Amino acid sequence: MGLDSDVQKISEPQFDFNRRIVNATAPYTVAYKPNLAFYEEHGAEGWEAFRRTCEYIREHYPEMFIIADAKRGDIGNTSEMYARAFFEDGLVDAVTLSPYMGRDTVEPFLKYEGKWAVILALTSNKSAADFETLQLANGKHLYEQVLETSATWGTLDNTMYVVGATQASELAGIRKIVPDHFLLVPGVGAQGGSLQEVAKYGLNDKCSLLVNSSRGIIYAPDPAAAAREIQQEMEILLRVC
Amino acid sequence: MGLDSDVQKISEPQFDFNRRIVNATAPYTVAYKPNLAFYEEHGAEGWEAFRRTCEYIREHYPEMFIIADAKRGDIGNTSEMYARAFFEDGLVDAVTLSPYMGRDTVEPFLKYEGKWAVILALTSNKSAADFETLQLANGKHLYEQVLETSATWGTLDNTMYVVGATQASELAGIRKIVPDHFLLVPGVGAQGGSLQEVAKYGLNDKCSLLVNSSRGIIYAPDPAAAAREIQQEMEILLRVC
Repeated sequence: MGLDSDVQKISEPQFDFNRRIVNATAPYTVAYKPNLAFYEEHGAEGWEAFRRTCEYIREHYPEMFIIADAKRGDIGNTSEMYARAFFEDGLVDAVTLSPYMGRDTVEPFLKYEGKWAVILALTSNKSAADFETLQLANGKHLYEQVLETSATWGTLDNTMYVVGATQASELAGIRKIVPDHFLLVPGVGAQGGSLQEVAKYGLNDKCSLLVNSSRGIIYAPDPAAAAREIQQEMEILLRVC
Repeated sequence: MGLDSDVQKISEPQFDFNRRIVNATAPYTVAYKPNLAFYEEHGAEGWEAFRRTCEYIREHYPEMFIIADAKRGDIGNTSEMYARAFFEDGLVDAVTLSPYMGRDTVEPFLKYEGKWAVILALTSNKSAADFETLQLANGKHLYEQVLETSATWGTLDNTMYVVGATQASELAGIRKIVPDHFLLVPGVGAQGGSLQEVAKYGLNDKCSLLVNSSRGIIYAPDPAAAAREIQQEMEILLRVC
């Protein structure tokens, strides 16, 4: 569940909103994914709301997986700083990373036992076509090469991939390159992805799918009901696929 | 000048350190470039040090150009949040951005009058070879396609590019694609780039080069002297090239 808590759409302080949403939806979710942009917009105060949200989840729902959707990516020594920012005091379990600058940008995140790098492969925005789906001289698309190359950097236990749900048909091809990796699929719901398509092409025999919904739940009149509905739909699909 | 102020290497609080470095080096520089990773590492407190640093520069050196080296990049509505975080209260003049997810990620930054998107093209780390220099089916390298495509999104007055100085010979090719854009060249000094090579291949008739040095100046025994030395070297090269 994405905690993309936009203060222009809510009437409470960010942390209060998040606490209420988390308490309502925790029975129906396995992971929370706050997007850092929504917190950074408010500078130090926003960072504090982000930190308090993560700590609240840790304290009250210790089994919950937390993903900082930060899409960071910088050279080695700087990337180490980012890894420290997110992992050092156990704030989150995973961080989303942009692969553009290569291995340097991901490696520092792989050094933390039990933590995960979530690498952007194929995203759900329409301008993914600008570069991600460009064809390389070797016949592969750029995002396929990103999967293939970066899969050698870490293991199945510290690397997963962002795969946009609006391109569900491409999931079949992606599963050929990374059959066993966990995939984080954003964009189900508000961004138009189909859960059924995602399950059909993305599930493997260990499941290995994290499907995200943000706006469709957190701004729903009854967030608990919205989360429960998606959870039930997923359970049905898990049995069918 | 990069303000990559690593608290493990300094004995003062980040803001105090930055203020001292800025006061010592302002006569010899045109721009400051704090890298956000060094601030985020300290959560809300770090963001506050970043903000205070920018405000201090604004107040005491109003002509100075400030670049948030943040390497952000997310889909449209999220990217708008990041743009707001950095531009809305005039904190900085420019933000570095990762192009992986395409036009969506850059556009919100181009809507701010007088502000700049600084797009990663070819970076100075060795793993730039993982993806940035991959050859596309059309014969171009990925970073060349990034330059060509993204140059159509904005103008010469709101878009510039990060071009790693350790690959100075490639600057000649880059100048063919973006002859008139400003280039931000990091990595001169500690990262091993040669100022002479950069000037030879990167300067155009309006100059259009911002050359960055961080560690070589801020950790020097006499930062003012270190900054002055680089400035003098640049002035000589400007006359020669």
